Parts: sequence; structure tokens; C-alpha cells
Amino acid sequence: MIGRLCVIGVGLMGGSLALALRRAAYVEEIVGCSRDSSHLDQALSKGIIDRAEIEIAAAVKGADVIVLAVPLGAVREVLEHLKDHVAESAVITDVGSAKASVIDDLLAVYGEIPENVVPGHPIAGNEKCGVAAAIPDLFHQRRVIITPLKHTSTHAVEVVSRMWSAAGAMVETMDVEHHDKVLAATSHLPHMLAFSLVDTLARLEDEDEIFRYAAGGFRDFTRIASSDPVMWRDICIANRAALLEMLERFMSDLAVLTQAVADSDKQLLLDIFRRAKASRDEFCH
Amino acid sequence: MIGRLCVIGVGLMGGSLALALRRAAYVEEIVGCSRDSSHLDQALSKGIIDRAEIEIAAAVKGADVIVLAVPLGAVREVLEHLKDHVAESAVITDVGSAKASVIDDLLAVYGEIPENVVPGHPIAGNEKCGVAAAIPDLFHQRRVIITPLKHTSTHAVEVVSRMWSAAGAMVETMDVEHHDKVLAATSHLPHMLAFSLVDTLARLEDEDEIFRYAAGGFRDFTRIASSDPVMWRDICIANRAALLEMLERFMSDLAVLTQAVADSDKQLLLDIFRRAKASRDEFCH
Repeated sequence: MIGRLCVIGVGLMGGSLALALRRAAYVEEIVGCSRDSSHLDQALSKGIIDRAEIEIAAAVKGADVIVLAVPLGAVREVLEHLKDHVAESAVITDVGSAKASVIDDLLAVYGEIPENVVPGHPIAGNEKCGVAAAIPDLFHQRRVIITPLKHTSTHAVEVVSRMWSAAGAMVETMDVEHHDKVLAATSHLPHMLAFSLVDTLARLEDEDEIFRYAAGGFRDFTRIASSDPVMWRDICIANRAALLEMLERFMSDLAVLTQAVADSDKQLLLDIFRRAKASRDEFCH
Repeated sequence: MIGRLCVIGVGLMGGSLALALRRAAYVEEIVGCSRDSSHLDQALSKGIIDRAEIEIAAAVKGADVIVLAVPLGAVREVLEHLKDHVAESAVITDVGSAKASVIDDLLAVYGEIPENVVPGHPIAGNEKCGVAAAIPDLFHQRRVIITPLKHTSTHAVEVVSRMWSAAGAMVETMDVEHHDKVLAATSHLPHMLAFSLVDTLARLEDEDEIFRYAAGGFRDFTRIASSDPVMWRDICIANRAALLEMLERFMSDLAVLTQAVADSDKQLLLDIFRRAKASRDEFCH
């Protein structure tokens, strides 16, 4: 049970977490913080938060748990603003899709990683963004990966784990580097391909007509290209090394496939498609 | 209304067309033809076809409309087998995802494009394949592109158009080259990316674990990688030129995006993601 929860960044993630914890009666008071007062007004009027604050210092004051739910590029600045105003007993976590960059931000602001900070990442969300899209079921049966360091306090880990469990999620622990590699492969690379594909098609001469003939498979394939551009710009910067490695692997493999098409190499095409189908059928049944 | 319909290739497409036309009471008798007797048995027992034939010559005899619903790589052989057994008044169409290759096959087998052949392509389907996946609604409100040539008989075009309308589809006419270009962009290229991505991930060292953390976005994005490998091998060969052009455009654009990641070029990343999101939101709302 959390006394006062402070959510910094009241969007899809922060708003959905607030809704889930409120529904579970796991929190007494929820303070929302955003630079955009219209987001706060929406969150207040939808009953997602109890109190709204524009200033981070005021928002975090007296909070038991503080959740940073801002794009990764804003984490460092938020940390700088909250540093001197957080209660000693407070626990801090975040929802960023890359974790090494959050560690770097913590080091830059604190000079060390505070014991009460538990980096976290709920593997949930959709292409919609903003508090208007927040739903209490967003984290239901989804994985949340936390990446505590050796000296992170057991108490802080427990507080964050219990919070996500109360929101319906399944909590797992992973080391920072491994998290960033896995996410580069399963999320960041696919987003790059979807964005790049839609952009390629959008710049064809007969763009309008091209998209008219896009069927259901195309809609599914490109859904993630409707994701928030700012969030994804920040993820690219934050997980640059792991993402670049995956992009290079992918481009090398796609060049092989392209050569197989150029050579009309039936056997190689069949081998690639069969391997892919077998993996996909096995892991995503 | 069709007297006798012959469907060569009783899979997802052929089976679904038969089901749709039967439900619409648009056909008196449906003859199914397949080299695989188990497919025919399934189609018979599910009431999809009235009569089953292994031999093409016997299947097409007396048929008013003949639909080739086989992978593109089998079209030429099927044409060779049916050529001397089709009634003069019969109309022939197909469902292949590329059309220039069908024209080539017709030329190779007939020495010219017969007046009674209307190349066609229903933009429908899903990653499942086989007659077991056939449903009467597969073509409901989906586009079917037909690519008649100048000398194709008006009667044949009408017969094929009415058949697809009866199956619930919206029929449009396009020239062969344009069809193949549009489909390379909206369907064939995305399939290459999905197959290639899953194959790349499947060959990472910690494959099992990687796929465990794939969330909903990944499932949608890779759904088309579960498509039929033989069908897609044939599409690559059949639409080689148009597909290669799109693959090269895409790889060039992805190289630009990769360089933007390498350079941490925030503005370029944002520009690409915003353009893509705007297009996707506009065309796939």
C-alpha cells in the first residue's frame, strides 16, 4: 500500500499506472506533475490524479513513491529538479524503455546511484499516447522488468515490485545491459523498421494511391509507426549502441535476402521464410 | 450466377471463395482440384466443394468459370494441363499477388493472352493458410484488383467482376505494371521485412529469451512472418523487379535512419518519425 504516489509525466504510462493502482485501492493519494497544464486538467477531470502540480519540487514533497513517466530525454532534467526535495524514505522508479541511459542520468545528477532508485520498464503500451489513452488494464498480465543494481536497497525493490503487482503486472529482474539488448531486438528495431517503411512509402510519387491498397497485414505491420515521435527519438538516443548493433545485423540479413531475390534463389528464400515462420509460430502462438 | 465453378488449388483463397459464393447462392456446382487428396477430402467434408478431382483435365471439363488459386510458381504448369480441356465459353481468372508473371505464363503456354482470361488479385488473406482456414467472409468489403488487357473480352471481365461482387468484394481495374508496383510496396516489401526480422532475432544467441519479452506490438508487427513460405518464395520470384526496387529504396532509407541513430541526430530522427506517424495516422485511421 502506498500513501502518496507522485507520477511525473501524466501520459499513457503514468496515467494508466495511476488508474490501475487506484482501482486496486493500493494508493491513498496520487499527485500528478506535468509541464503541460492541459494534461493535468485532463487527468484531474478524469479522476486519474487527486492533485496537480506544475513544479516538480512541490509534486514530490512528501511522496512515498515517485514514478518518472517522461520520455527518456527528459529524465536527467527531472532528476535535477527533484533531487533536493525528495523525502529520505521515498522510493523512485521510472518506466523508460532503455535502462543504461537512466543509470547515466542518475550518475550525472547524484554522482552515484542512490539506493532508493529502482530503474524499471513495463513492457506494455500501444501506439496511442497521452493521458486520454490511459486505461487501468494497460499493465494487466504484462511483464515489468526492473534492473536494480547490487547496492539498491531491498526495501526499494520490494516497494516497486509490489506496486507493479498491484497494477496487475508480472515483475522480473534483469541486468541493465541485458535489458537494453533484449529491448533493442524486440521493440526498438521493429519500431525503426515500421517508421522507416511508412516513410519510404509516403515519399513514393503515388503515395495516396499506394496506401489505398494497403490491406490488414499492412495495418498491423505499421501500427507501431503511429507511436509518439518524441518518445522514440529519445529511445534511439538512449539505447544507441544496442540499437545500432541490431540495425546492422538486420541490414546485413536483409541484404542477403535481397540478393536471394535478385538471384531468384528459390532454396535460400524458402529456407529464410521457413525459419522465420517456424520461430514466429513457436514463440507467438 | 455461375453454373459450374472449378477451383484449382483448394486452400485459404480458393476455399474461401467457394464458401462465399455458395453462401450467396451464386453457384450451382463447385469442383475442387488439388494434387493433395487430403485437401480435397477436407474441402468435401466441410461442404466447401461438391466434387473433387485430382486431374486438372477432368476438373475443368464443362466448367463455366475456372479460378486458379495456386502459388504463383504453379500457374504455368496448371495452364499447360488445362489448356486443351477448357470449354470455349469458359472464363479463367486467378488470385496471384503479382500479375506480370501470370501474363508471362499465359504467353508461354498460349503464345498469346487468351480473350477469356482475366488476371485478378483479391487483396485479402491472412497469415493462416490451407483449406482449414477458409472462411466465407474473407473477401467481405476487400478490394479485388483485376488487370484485363486491351483485348480481354468484356464478357469475361463482367463474369469475373460479378463473381467477386457476389463474394462480397469491391472490384477495381488496374494495369499490370502498376498493380505489381503497388503490391511490392504495400505487401511484398513488408513481408520481406517481417520474415527477415524474425529470422535475425531467431539467430541471436539467446533466442528463446528474446522472444519471451516480445510484447503486443511485436506480435502484430511479425504476424505476416507466419505466412506460407512457398507462396512467398513464388511471389518473390514472380514480382522480382518491382520488389527489388522497393527493397533498395527501403535499404537506402534505413541506412539514413541508422546513420541518424549513430550520429544521435535528434532533429532528423524526429523528422522521420513525425513524417511516418502523420502518414500512417492519415491513411490507416
